[in-house]
Amino acid sequence: MAPAMKALRKIKAAKGLAMESVSVPAIGPTDVLVRVKAASICGTDLHIYGWDRWSQGRIKPPVTLGHEFCGVVERAGEEVTAVKPGDFVSAEMHVNCGHCHQCRLGQAHICQNLRIIGIDQDGAFAECVKIPASNIIRLDPAIPERYGAILDPLGNAVHTVLAGEIAGQTVLVTGCGPIGLMSIAVAKACGSSTVFATETNAQRRAMAERMGADVVLNPAAEDAVKRIAGETGGTGVDVLLEMSGNSHAIQQGFRALRAGGRASLLGIPTESVPLDLVNDVIFKGATVQGIYGRRMYDTWVKMIALLKAGRLNLEPLFGEREPLDKFENAFAKLQSGLPGKILLYPNGIPR
Amino acid sequence: MAPAMKALRKIKAAKGLAMESVSVPAIGPTDVLVRVKAASICGTDLHIYGWDRWSQGRIKPPVTLGHEFCGVVERAGEEVTAVKPGDFVSAEMHVNCGHCHQCRLGQAHICQNLRIIGIDQDGAFAECVKIPASNIIRLDPAIPERYGAILDPLGNAVHTVLAGEIAGQTVLVTGCGPIGLMSIAVAKACGSSTVFATETNAQRRAMAERMGADVVLNPAAEDAVKRIAGETGGTGVDVLLEMSGNSHAIQQGFRALRAGGRASLLGIPTESVPLDLVNDVIFKGATVQGIYGRRMYDTWVKMIALLKAGRLNLEPLFGEREPLDKFENAFAKLQSGLPGKILLYPNGIPR
Amino acid sequence: MAPAMKALRKIKAAKGLAMESVSVPAIGPTDVLVRVKAASICGTDLHIYGWDRWSQGRIKPPVTLGHEFCGVVERAGEEVTAVKPGDFVSAEMHVNCGHCHQCRLGQAHICQNLRIIGIDQDGAFAECVKIPASNIIRLDPAIPERYGAILDPLGNAVHTVLAGEIAGQTVLVTGCGPIGLMSIAVAKACGSSTVFATETNAQRRAMAERMGADVVLNPAAEDAVKRIAGETGGTGVDVLLEMSGNSHAIQQGFRALRAGGRASLLGIPTESVPLDLVNDVIFKGATVQGIYGRRMYDTWVKMIALLKAGRLNLEPLFGEREPLDKFENAFAKLQSGLPGKILLYPNGIPR
Amino acid sequence: MAPAMKALRKIKAAKGLAMESVSVPAIGPTDVLVRVKAASICGTDLHIYGWDRWSQGRIKPPVTLGHEFCGVVERAGEEVTAVKPGDFVSAEMHVNCGHCHQCRLGQAHICQNLRIIGIDQDGAFAECVKIPASNIIRLDPAIPERYGAILDPLGNAVHTVLAGEIAGQTVLVTGCGPIGLMSIAVAKACGSSTVFATETNAQRRAMAERMGADVVLNPAAEDAVKRIAGETGGTGVDVLLEMSGNSHAIQQGFRALRAGGRASLLGIPTESVPLDLVNDVIFKGATVQGIYGRRMYDTWVKMIALLKAGRLNLEPLFGEREPLDKFENAFAKLQSGLPGKILLYPNGIPR
Repeated sequence: MAPAMKALRKIKAAKGLAMESVSVPAIGPTDVLVRVKAASICGTDLHIYGWDRWSQGRIKPPVTLGHEFCGVVERAGEEVTAVKPGDFVSAEMHVNCGHCHQCRLGQAHICQNLRIIGIDQDGAFAECVKIPASNIIRLDPAIPERYGAILDPLGNAVHTVLAGEIAGQTVLVTGCGPIGLMSIAVAKACGSSTVFATETNAQRRAMAERMGADVVLNPAAEDAVKRIAGETGGTGVDVLLEMSGNSHAIQQGFRALRAGGRASLLGIPTESVPLDLVNDVIFKGATVQGIYGRRMYDTWVKMIALLKAGRLNLEPLFGEREPLDKFENAFAKLQSGLPGKILLYPNGIPR
Repeated sequence: MAPAMKALRKIKAAKGLAMESVSVPAIGPTDVLVRVKAASICGTDLHIYGWDRWSQGRIKPPVTLGHEFCGVVERAGEEVTAVKPGDFVSAEMHVNCGHCHQCRLGQAHICQNLRIIGIDQDGAFAECVKIPASNIIRLDPAIPERYGAILDPLGNAVHTVLAGEIAGQTVLVTGCGPIGLMSIAVAKACGSSTVFATETNAQRRAMAERMGADVVLNPAAEDAVKRIAGETGGTGVDVLLEMSGNSHAIQQGFRALRAGGRASLLGIPTESVPLDLVNDVIFKGATVQGIYGRRMYDTWVKMIALLKAGRLNLEPLFGEREPLDKFENAFAKLQSGLPGKILLYPNGIPR
Repeated sequence: MAPAMKALRKIKAAKGLAMESVSVPAIGPTDVLVRVKAASICGTDLHIYGWDRWSQGRIKPPVTLGHEFCGVVERAGEEVTAVKPGDFVSAEMHVNCGHCHQCRLGQAHICQNLRIIGIDQDGAFAECVKIPASNIIRLDPAIPERYGAILDPLGNAVHTVLAGEIAGQTVLVTGCGPIGLMSIAVAKACGSSTVFATETNAQRRAMAERMGADVVLNPAAEDAVKRIAGETGGTGVDVLLEMSGNSHAIQQGFRALRAGGRASLLGIPTESVPLDLVNDVIFKGATVQGIYGRRMYDTWVKMIALLKAGRLNLEPLFGEREPLDKFENAFAKLQSGLPGKILLYPNGIPR
Repeated sequence: MAPAMKALRKIKAAKGLAMESVSVPAIGPTDVLVRVKAASICGTDLHIYGWDRWSQGRIKPPVTLGHEFCGVVERAGEEVTAVKPGDFVSAEMHVNCGHCHQCRLGQAHICQNLRIIGIDQDGAFAECVKIPASNIIRLDPAIPERYGAILDPLGNAVHTVLAGEIAGQTVLVTGCGPIGLMSIAVAKACGSSTVFATETNAQRRAMAERMGADVVLNPAAEDAVKRIAGETGGTGVDVLLEMSGNSHAIQQGFRALRAGGRASLLGIPTESVPLDLVNDVIFKGATVQGIYGRRMYDTWVKMIALLKAGRLNLEPLFGEREPLDKFENAFAKLQSGLPGKILLYPNGIPR
C-alpha cells in the first residue's frame, strides 16, 4: 500500500479548501517525485478557493492545488538522467504536449494542449509532488529557498520584462501585485532607466518603492498619464508592463506609452476592454504583446542566471510564513490585501 | 511674377474641391520641384472631399490635395545632390522633424512633429509639387508610371506585410480596399503560404482573387473564423493583416489568429474597439503591431527592390484614368465603391 | 527471430560500402519504424564512402548510412500518438538530448550531445529505419516523394535563407552544389530581388540558371566581386549565402557583401580561413551567422508550408534514380561531378 | 578678421603634433559652434601622433585632432532649432551623407561617405569646434563633465554590449583598454550575469576588477579558454565582446564562446585573422557582429538614459587631467600604458 501524505485540496465544487491525507504519487519512468520544502500562494489559488466563475469552468475536484514551489528530489524514474535524489529543484508547472504547431515552433508556453500541475492535476500544496522530468529545474544551492518557492511568478515577471528591449528604457508598471513588484526589480536589474509604477493600494505603493520604482503614483489621486508625460519630456514611456488586468489601468497605460513603444500585457481583465486602437496603437506604431506563462525554458535560464549573479533583490516581498495546516490564515491575509508573498511549508517550517 | 499652374484644392470649409490656378511653388536650397506625371486618389482624399469630422479638425483651407504621385524633377535647389532635373521620381509625403525622440531612434515614420504634403501643405494634385530633397525617391526608369503613382499605399502594404516574418506563413487579410489588395500580392511575392481574404463587397472579392488570394471569404455570408480554423487544422493563421478598420472584422481577425501569431493593424477604426484581450492576445501570446505610414526609408528600399525585380503584379488594380480636370468623375466612381485605383493626370494623359 | 532486410553499410574502416542483410530494427515505446520509399545521397555520404580523415574520426563501423529519405510508417511504439501506420513521413535525423543548455534555450539544432541517424547510428539506406517519434515529420500526401527524399538538405537551404531578412534583398550564393542550388529557389520564392550565384563547374552554373539565379558567374573566369559591385551600384549584396566551404569563395563573398549585410555560412571549409575582419566585418558592421542543420522544428514547419503552397520548383534537381542495390552507379556519378540529386530506392523503384 | 584660438594639430606628415593659433571656425546656417570644456584622447589619436601606416594613408595635414569632448554651445546657425547658446552638449563626430543605401536603411553609422570630425576635418582639441546641428547631442546638466568628455568611446561600448541580448548572459570581454573597461560596466548595468575579462597588462586587470568584472584572467599566465569552460559548466560564454584587435585574443574568444552565442567584434586587428570557421562559427551556430561607431542615434539615446539614471559608474577611469598645452605629458603617459582616460582642457582646467 502506498504511503500517505498531507495535501491541501479542492474536494468539492464549492468555496473553500480542505487538508486531506492522500497517497504519495506513484511515478512513471520519466517522472520525478519532489519533497516540497516551500510553496507559495498565487492569485489563481485565491480564485479557486473562492470558487469564482473561471474556477467552476476549469477545476475538476478533487485536486491538490499549488504551482509555486521548490523542494528536493525524493525519487527519479528509471529513464531520468537530468536530476537525482537530493537535488534542489523547482519546476515549470505548465506541461506541454510536444507535438502541436506551437510546440514545434518553440512556443511551448502557448501549447494548444497545455495542462497545469496544481490546476488540472495534483500540485505542490502537499508533502510531495510528481513532475515530468522535462519540467524539472535544477537550482543552484546558493539560491535561497524563499526565492525557489516563487520562481513561477518571478518567471512571469522575467518573461514580461525581457520580451523586448529594456536597457536604457523608461518603464511603466501598471499594478503592483506580486508580479508587478517583481517586474520593477527585474527591470532595474536589466538596465531600465526611470521606472514608474501605478497602484491604488497604499501598502503596495510603499512596497513598489522598496522594490526600486523611481516614481510611484496613485492613479486615483492624480492624473498619472499627465504626470508621466511631464517626467518624460512629453514623450511617454518606452515600455508598458501591464500587471493589473484593470480596464482603466490598461487604457491609461496605453495613453502613457510613447509612439513606437512596447506594451506587454500580463494582467488578466475579466471582460472585453475598449481600446482606442487608432491613437494608442496604430498612429503610435506601438507593439503590443500578450504574455503568458514562462518561455520554456529560455525564461528559466535567464531567471536562474540573474538570481545566481545576485542581481535581484526580492527581500521586501518576504516575511509571512505558515505551515501548510494553517492555510486559512494565509488565504485570509492575502484576501485582505497583504502585499508580498506568503510561504507555506508542507513539511514543516525550517528554523 | 511666378508662373501659374492648375491645382485641385480644398478652398473652403465645406464639401467639395475646386480646380484653381495658383503660382508654381518657389523652392528653397534643399527642395525639389517635381512636374507631376500621374497621381492617385487615396481614401483620405475622399474623406477630405466629403468634409467629415476628421477633415474638419485637420485641414486648413486653402490647400492643394494629393499625396500619391510620380513625376519628373523640374528644378532642384542649389544644395541638392541626390537628384537632378529630368530624373523620374516619387516621394515620401510624410515630412519628419529630424530631432524628436522617435526621429533620433530611427522611427521617423512616427515623428512627433510629422507634417504631410497634400494634407498639411500643398500636394501633388497639381502640375508641379515642391518636395524636400530628403523625401525624394529616385525611381528606376523600368518602373511603370502607373506603379510610380501608387507607391504611397503600396508602401503601406509593404510596411505591413514585412513588419514580421512572412515566408511560409499563413495570412489573413481583413478588408480588400486598395491596400488590402496590394498586401495580398506582396505577401505572395514574399513567400507566404495560404492567403485568406475577407471582404463583404463582391467586386473587391473578385479583385482579391485576381491579386492572388487563395481563399476569399464573405464574412457576411459564412462564418469566416470557423472556415479559417478548418483550413488550418484548427490552428488559425500565423499573420493577420488588418486593412478594414471595421470593429467586427478586427474582432474576427483576432479570433482567427493562431496562438503566437502576429496581428498588424493598418485600417483606421472610427471609434474604440472592444477587444477580448485575455483570449485573443494574452493567452494567445500574440504580437499586435500598429502600422502607420512607411518606414523611412527602409520600406521604400524594399518596395523598389521588389518592383525592379518584377515580383509584384498589380495590374488588376489599374484601368481607370482621368485628366485632373475631370476629378469629379473619379471621386464619384470611388465613392460608389469601385475597387482598384484611379490615376489622375495634371499634365495630360499620355497616349 | 527478427525478420531481415537489405541495408547499405560501412562495414569496415576502409574505402567503400557494402549491401548486407540485417535485422529489421526493434523499436521502443516512443520509436517509429518507417519503410523507406526513397532516399538521397548527401555529400557526407561521399566522404564516408571515400573514408576521408573526418570519416575516420567519426564513423564507427558497422553502421547503415543514409539520412535523407521519406517513407511510410510501418509500426509505431505504444506511446506514440503523433503518427500511425500508413502515414507518409520524413524525419529530422539530428537527435538532440533535450536537457543541455542549448536544448533548454530552444537551440536544439546545436545540442551539445547531438547524435545523427545514418552517421552515429543506423540510417535510411535500408528497407526500414527506426526513428524517435519526436523527430518524425508527417508529410502532406500532396508533397511528391522526390521532394520528400531531400528535405534534409532543403531544410539546410531554408534554414540558411530564412536566418535573416530576405524579401527585397540582393543575394549572393557562393557554390552551387545541391544546397546552393536549392537556396536559389528558396530565396526567389521568399521575395529576394537579384540573386547572384558563383560556381566554377559549368554544369552547375547551367543548373543555377534553371533554378532561378539572375546572374550566374564563373569566378575563375571573371572578377566576380567587381561584377557584383557594378550590378549593385557599388553597394554590394545585402545577403551572402556561403555554400562552398572554399576559402577563396568565402573571402570573395565577404568582399562582395555590402556594409550592414548578412553573411550566412553553411559550407564547411577543411582548414582555417584567413579573414580580413577589419574591412569585411568590423568596418562593414556585418552580421555573420554559422548555420548548422535545421532549426527544430521551425525550419521544418516553414519548409513544409512552402512546399504545400507550391512555392518551390526543384524539378531541375531530379532525374537520376537507382534501386539501392545499384548504389555503386550512383556514388560514381556523384563523384564525377553530376549536379543535382540521385534518388535511391531500397524497396524498389515505383513505376 | 576672425578671432584666433589655440588648437592641437597635425601640421606635417611626420611624427608629433603641434599647438597652433588658428581662426575660430566660421559656421553655416545648420552648424553649431561649441566651446570645448573637456576633451579626451583616443587610441586613434596616439596612432596619428605616432604617424603609423594607417595615419599616413588617411590624415591630410594640417588638421586639428580630437573627437571625444563636451562643451557649451557658443553660437548656433540661423536654421538650428535643436540647441541654443549655453546648452551643455557633446556630439557624434561621424558625419553621414544622408542619401547612400546605408543611410536610407537607418544604418548611418556605416554610411558609405562617412567623414570624421577630428580625423578628416578639424576636431575638438581646440578652444572651439564646429559641428553640424544634426550631430549635436544635448546633455542633461546632471551628467558630469568628465562623463561628457568620453561619450564617443562609451558609445562604442554601449553599441557593442547592446548589439544583442545581454540580461542574464555570461560575458567575456577580451582586452581591457578603455572601451573594454567601459563595456564591463555597461554589461553589468544591463543585467549580465558573470562577466569574464582577459588582459595581459596587470594594471588594466586591476582596473577591470574595479569596473565590476567577476573573473579577470591573464591569458599569458593561464589557459583562459579552459578556465572559462570550467566556470560555465563546460558550455562557454553566451557573449564575446572583442575589444583587443589581437589575433590570439580573437581566436581564444571564439573558442570560449558557447554554441549559439554572440561574438561582437570592435577591436581592430592589423592584419588578416585565421579563423576556425567550422568549429568556432558554423558548427556552433554562432552569430558574429562587426561593430563600428555608434548607432545614430539609438546608441546615444540609450547611453544618455543609462547615465541620467545613474546606472554607470565609470569613476575608476578618471583621474588624469591636463591643460591642452601640456598634451605631451598626456600622450607620453598613455603611450607608456596608463589604463583609463586622460582629460584635456583647451579652455583651462576648472577648479
